[in-house]
Amino acid sequence: MTTVLEQAQRARVAARGLAKLGRAEKDRALRALAARLRESVERITPANTKDIERAKAIGLSAAMIDRLTMGAKTIESTAVGVEYIVGLEDPVGSRREMVQRPNGLLVGRQRIPLGTIGMIYESRPNVTIDSAALCLKSGNAVLLRGGKEALETNRMLGEIVAETLTAAGISPDAVQIVSAESRDTISELISLSGWVDLVIPRGGEGLIRYVTEHARVPVIQHFKGVCHLFLDLACDVEMAIQLALNSKTQRPGVCNALECLLVHAGTAPTALPAIAKALMDAGVELRGCPTTCRLVPAAKPASDADWGMEYLDKILAIRVVDDIDQAMEHVARYGSNHTEAICTSSYDHANRWVREVDASCVTVNASTRFNDGGQLGLGAEIGISTSKLHAYGPMGLESLTSEKWVVFGEGQVRQG
Amino acid sequence: MTTVLEQAQRARVAARGLAKLGRAEKDRALRALAARLRESVERITPANTKDIERAKAIGLSAAMIDRLTMGAKTIESTAVGVEYIVGLEDPVGSRREMVQRPNGLLVGRQRIPLGTIGMIYESRPNVTIDSAALCLKSGNAVLLRGGKEALETNRMLGEIVAETLTAAGISPDAVQIVSAESRDTISELISLSGWVDLVIPRGGEGLIRYVTEHARVPVIQHFKGVCHLFLDLACDVEMAIQLALNSKTQRPGVCNALECLLVHAGTAPTALPAIAKALMDAGVELRGCPTTCRLVPAAKPASDADWGMEYLDKILAIRVVDDIDQAMEHVARYGSNHTEAICTSSYDHANRWVREVDASCVTVNASTRFNDGGQLGLGAEIGISTSKLHAYGPMGLESLTSEKWVVFGEGQVRQG
Repeated sequence: MTTVLEQAQRARVAARGLAKLGRAEKDRALRALAARLRESVERITPANTKDIERAKAIGLSAAMIDRLTMGAKTIESTAVGVEYIVGLEDPVGSRREMVQRPNGLLVGRQRIPLGTIGMIYESRPNVTIDSAALCLKSGNAVLLRGGKEALETNRMLGEIVAETLTAAGISPDAVQIVSAESRDTISELISLSGWVDLVIPRGGEGLIRYVTEHARVPVIQHFKGVCHLFLDLACDVEMAIQLALNSKTQRPGVCNALECLLVHAGTAPTALPAIAKALMDAGVELRGCPTTCRLVPAAKPASDADWGMEYLDKILAIRVVDDIDQAMEHVARYGSNHTEAICTSSYDHANRWVREVDASCVTVNASTRFNDGGQLGLGAEIGISTSKLHAYGPMGLESLTSEKWVVFGEGQVRQG
Repeated sequence: MTTVLEQAQRARVAARGLAKLGRAEKDRALRALAARLRESVERITPANTKDIERAKAIGLSAAMIDRLTMGAKTIESTAVGVEYIVGLEDPVGSRREMVQRPNGLLVGRQRIPLGTIGMIYESRPNVTIDSAALCLKSGNAVLLRGGKEALETNRMLGEIVAETLTAAGISPDAVQIVSAESRDTISELISLSGWVDLVIPRGGEGLIRYVTEHARVPVIQHFKGVCHLFLDLACDVEMAIQLALNSKTQRPGVCNALECLLVHAGTAPTALPAIAKALMDAGVELRGCPTTCRLVPAAKPASDADWGMEYLDKILAIRVVDDIDQAMEHVARYGSNHTEAICTSSYDHANRWVREVDASCVTVNASTRFNDGGQLGLGAEIGISTSKLHAYGPMGLESLTSEKWVVFGEGQVRQG
């Protein structure tokens, strides 16, 4: 029985090899991976069927089974995702401006891989391929600890990646599947200080809290998304309706969906009834502060627990505030540093919102739903960070790298 | 008795205020701090004398007492350091290239402060002022937990900073001294997950290990500096002598001093005797591999323990290697990811060294002593990181910031 430590030790050796690869070699392997995935529908589907049957037998929800399913369509879109990564620039090796110091030394910073990444995730087996592809392109080895429910599928995907790497002359230890048979492998993975450089947990809040509290290695934290939209005194009511509708209803179950609408007291009397109607027509339940309930009799009174609540459902809290300061106070108190939007036609307030609100993404006159790797132009994302260390927001290739200092001299020595 | 948690809670509020300040306001406060320090020699010196007397009474070493001493000269150089920070660009608010997405959204990243920094350090009380100034300029609140031996001096410096901030209209909670009366305040500070955004320990390896192992908040790690210099087959022997001498002897007790010299087998017969002579003339004890000892009879035989050893003294390990690959193998196995230098006239080997060696700073034909915030152009440094997460190498103002995404729209909503 291979331990996770042994896997991490092999990954460390593989990572050193990966760090030397040029973009062409990595892109060639990624293209081969996309091709092999497409050719492997008949290997993946039976493995996936086993997972689905077991999931049904133990009574997992239909939503869970849907996320678990990896048929020809998901395989194709996953392969397309891998090809998209081929098209992205390789961050490794790029140098920031090199400056000449007074003693003639040329100094600057060069991007390098982090080393070995540990991914801990649930259900969706396409995360296995997305993560493998992002880590390969950024020159990192990766240990993939998927959910127990996707065990057979992930094992097969691991085989396919290993075959691809071997054929490309890259050590298959660069991408390893960690056994999902027992929870102990999670504990072991997050304890490997010195062997694992970063752990990225993706899944429910419980999993993320467990990993954060017990890890002895750095962890990217992403707890929840309690996103607000503030409708300023000067704002385009039509735009406000569209932003609120899109942010709340386009996909209510995700972390960048709107959970609370804040409305300037001067805007509320004219705008709120129309916005409320549009939202209710879209099936959204409204929970308002007293002023909201007076203006929108159909809204239910909000309780204290509604502020800061992540509904992940067609429910929206609404609060009327005195001004942008009160709106920002509310966001600072109840927000989760995820996505915070303002709808305003004031240059000054747009600037203040962008400068003063602390969130991984602040938007002006745009839906909260844009806080997403693909929408922001990163391509695929390996995770999202709501803490500021190392990365904040969606993490793409660059977030999987660091920078080292490089110094070019002609024999300079230090004087003082 | 104020708890560290209460201090951190006040710091959080102050940090929100700091994040809004423009460069001019921060620079004005920094200039005032430099001025007040210069005016306060007669307040600082008596406090410092108390610390020194206590240190002498409990028998601290002369070196320790030297580091503890803060007389007029140290106060002046500290004030000059604060003024240097005035001259540095404010990283906060700067934006990376904003790109237009196909839907017309303008997206990019903007630098923001991290929030609240916890500094844990020993002896040198000027760290109190350096850290306060760097954190203020980068818009971060800071909790300063200095060493017990500098208790009176740090308390006085804290008062001087607080007076300066108050006079400048900035909350004095932005820079707070944490009691050094008991070790418990360290444990408490590093446990404040959600309140303290980053802890930077500076001091002995014991302190850093303790903080790393027990922290519930992110920690910048800096264990030790085992720096190598590799003399390639093609290299300028005169340059090699100067680099080895400077790296080893300019200041042997610091982390970027040379600890091990690796010499190409083809270079060793001609170069090693001359280099060894120069080093021995400078009082350096040599510990060599068998080949080294044959070429340099005065060298002592190295034991296994000498490879990877951080002497922090006038002792140097020397090993003859077959080629650059063996040199890089040695560095990967025994190095500490701090500073790794090559002396070469080969373009290809210079490139390979820079690309393949994993260290916070790699140098070509330059002394290891250049891995230093001041030498690299950062100005003051708040610490140095030998792990790759968030920062790698000397940390200046930029390392005290993160980036958030900013999105400017004209009502865009997400379609798919």
